[in-house]
Amino acid sequence: MPTSGIKDATAIVGVGQTAFAKALPQSEKRLALEAILAALDDAGIHPSEVDGLASYTLETTEEIEIARNLGTDDITFFGQVGYGGGAGCAVVGHAAMAVATGQCTVAVAWRSRKRGAASARPWAGVSSRVRGNQQWSRPWGLLRPVDEIAMLTRRYLHTYGATRDQLANVALAFRKHANRNPGAMMHGKPLSRDEYLAARWISEPLCLFDNCLESDGAGAVVITSAERARDTRNVPVLVHGFAQSIPRQHQTMTNYFCDDPLLGPSWACAELLWRQADFGPAEVDVAQLYDAFSPLVPLSLEGYGFCGRGEGAAFTEDGNLEWDRGSLPTNTSGGGMSEAYVHGFNLIVEGARQLRGESHCQVEGAETCLVTSGEGVPTSALLLRRGEAGDR
Amino acid sequence: MPTSGIKDATAIVGVGQTAFAKALPQSEKRLALEAILAALDDAGIHPSEVDGLASYTLETTEEIEIARNLGTDDITFFGQVGYGGGAGCAVVGHAAMAVATGQCTVAVAWRSRKRGAASARPWAGVSSRVRGNQQWSRPWGLLRPVDEIAMLTRRYLHTYGATRDQLANVALAFRKHANRNPGAMMHGKPLSRDEYLAARWISEPLCLFDNCLESDGAGAVVITSAERARDTRNVPVLVHGFAQSIPRQHQTMTNYFCDDPLLGPSWACAELLWRQADFGPAEVDVAQLYDAFSPLVPLSLEGYGFCGRGEGAAFTEDGNLEWDRGSLPTNTSGGGMSEAYVHGFNLIVEGARQLRGESHCQVEGAETCLVTSGEGVPTSALLLRRGEAGDR
Repeated sequence: MPTSGIKDATAIVGVGQTAFAKALPQSEKRLALEAILAALDDAGIHPSEVDGLASYTLETTEEIEIARNLGTDDITFFGQVGYGGGAGCAVVGHAAMAVATGQCTVAVAWRSRKRGAASARPWAGVSSRVRGNQQWSRPWGLLRPVDEIAMLTRRYLHTYGATRDQLANVALAFRKHANRNPGAMMHGKPLSRDEYLAARWISEPLCLFDNCLESDGAGAVVITSAERARDTRNVPVLVHGFAQSIPRQHQTMTNYFCDDPLLGPSWACAELLWRQADFGPAEVDVAQLYDAFSPLVPLSLEGYGFCGRGEGAAFTEDGNLEWDRGSLPTNTSGGGMSEAYVHGFNLIVEGARQLRGESHCQVEGAETCLVTSGEGVPTSALLLRRGEAGDR
Repeated sequence: MPTSGIKDATAIVGVGQTAFAKALPQSEKRLALEAILAALDDAGIHPSEVDGLASYTLETTEEIEIARNLGTDDITFFGQVGYGGGAGCAVVGHAAMAVATGQCTVAVAWRSRKRGAASARPWAGVSSRVRGNQQWSRPWGLLRPVDEIAMLTRRYLHTYGATRDQLANVALAFRKHANRNPGAMMHGKPLSRDEYLAARWISEPLCLFDNCLESDGAGAVVITSAERARDTRNVPVLVHGFAQSIPRQHQTMTNYFCDDPLLGPSWACAELLWRQADFGPAEVDVAQLYDAFSPLVPLSLEGYGFCGRGEGAAFTEDGNLEWDRGSLPTNTSGGGMSEAYVHGFNLIVEGARQLRGESHCQVEGAETCLVTSGEGVPTSALLLRRGEAGDR
């Protein structure tokens, strides 16, 4: 059996996104179609060639609606992945698996978020639904995702002696990147350390600026075979590795009862990812780490092996996540905290832009990128690698 | 690019099911776990070895609940497929893709149905939700799936001159099979042609016996690599081919507006399936065709190429679907109409049983089996092939 049948077999050949804003007039369906059409146009591939569709279970727009409105011919692969922000890299990975095995030839993966839609804030209305493991936390006031992660953050700060000043490093680095990105919601809105430290609590110890943005918008990518990618108009972004993870004993968001709550899903995900890869964490040029909340970043830095356990917060010191001076430039579009929060899909789009040399915070000579999805939920990750430009 | 990267790369090595009945006391979660544990026990594989989970979006039990209750270690592949009865073969196919590409090593796929659960009858409560293409049919009285298929059946009978007597051939053949299967809900309940013709309409021209059963119950299969399959205790059932389809212009259930409503999703699905395969329809020894309603069977017989267009109804003559005298023994467990309706998953279990030589209506020397999922919705199909028995 192959240890990785998808390694470098497929590539992201087109990326697209809509405008991002707190409220957009378009429907979730229309936003999805706009992002997908932008990605196909970017790839130079006609919508009629699409035969694979991969999306989040969160999506309110059915695959048949996307297919009909795009004007596709027969679709021969379609599937979904659950767990909100944990699904981002997985939908791209599943599309890559389908292309690599010949089940489809041109797949699109996307996430469209409309905050008014039922799916946009799946945790809203929790007072009336307490099911599964949430029965053990919600009656005690852990209602919102931010409350659940605040509890995890307390444990993190306590166990490792990490500080709010270190969480500020995360927020400030990503804001700095967004300030250079005209498509970011926080473009033109600088953030100082004093402002961060003076901001109101959302759920102590997490303040306003430790949270991702409330956004409408959509992102999409086009995946095809590495062979065909050489004939498209962009530098191919090879899908080098892909992993998913539901770790042993896992609960979504409230992993307080497992053996070690600070070993999040990223640890198991990283194990499969690096086992497949031709390179390791030290060879990653740029990272896009899921950042619904700032403390998820140090947790992921540890889980994916960029530093040791408990060292993630210290890793953020000295501008180490910043595009122009860090050892691991991270969330170079501004990420979920300062570009837009569309359940992490914009991180994938930015990962591809970096390897094409098109970021607004371009890391010189970037050849490899790690993209991760939700930390604290069943998750996924992608290792992307710059391919060779084709004939066009 | 390979034309089929999954061909014979994986195998179903275990099958399991619960009791089937109109009402079972267990929860949907418990039924799922019972079927999965039975399949693992059948395979001789310990639950801790499971690292892949594939299920329907219909499932109300989350993957994390299945993983925790099974006692798995880290799960490295999970995904879902939508469209109710269209998902059955697809979830097995996705698991096969994941195993074939090395993303997981032992996957389970399942469907658990509890009619009281929200997911069991997704069309119920339609009077309050009219969305998408259903806006064009539901206000005019096409409320239930049976109404939607009745309209399609009218067109089929009109266009091809097919008869109710031919639909009776389908119902009677499957009932005959169920009468030999102790696990079937219709075991011990024979059905005569006179009873069929005298039965009440559910939605004219579909009578009571043209409909699948209302069932609680669950089925599951275990998928691993063909290599490992040789070391398990059963004859491996190789996944020879897999296809999915959302055809051009498709609407779910109400494909009345597409160019040709009698060319259902099976036509496009069949195209991909046979393109991958080493054999054709003439070499299929036994079939398990999705039978939520009897007219779907002639439609699928045409779509998958067992006869020409419009010849599906006539194909059912002279006991041609019956296990002991037909050219294409079909739904040899009784299928959705006479064994149980768990969104088609029991068809997959029975397909594997046939190739292991363990059916109650065993087709002598069966080497190949076609299994199909929902006709009239985005669909999927599997070609299964008997592998070589291993050392045990």
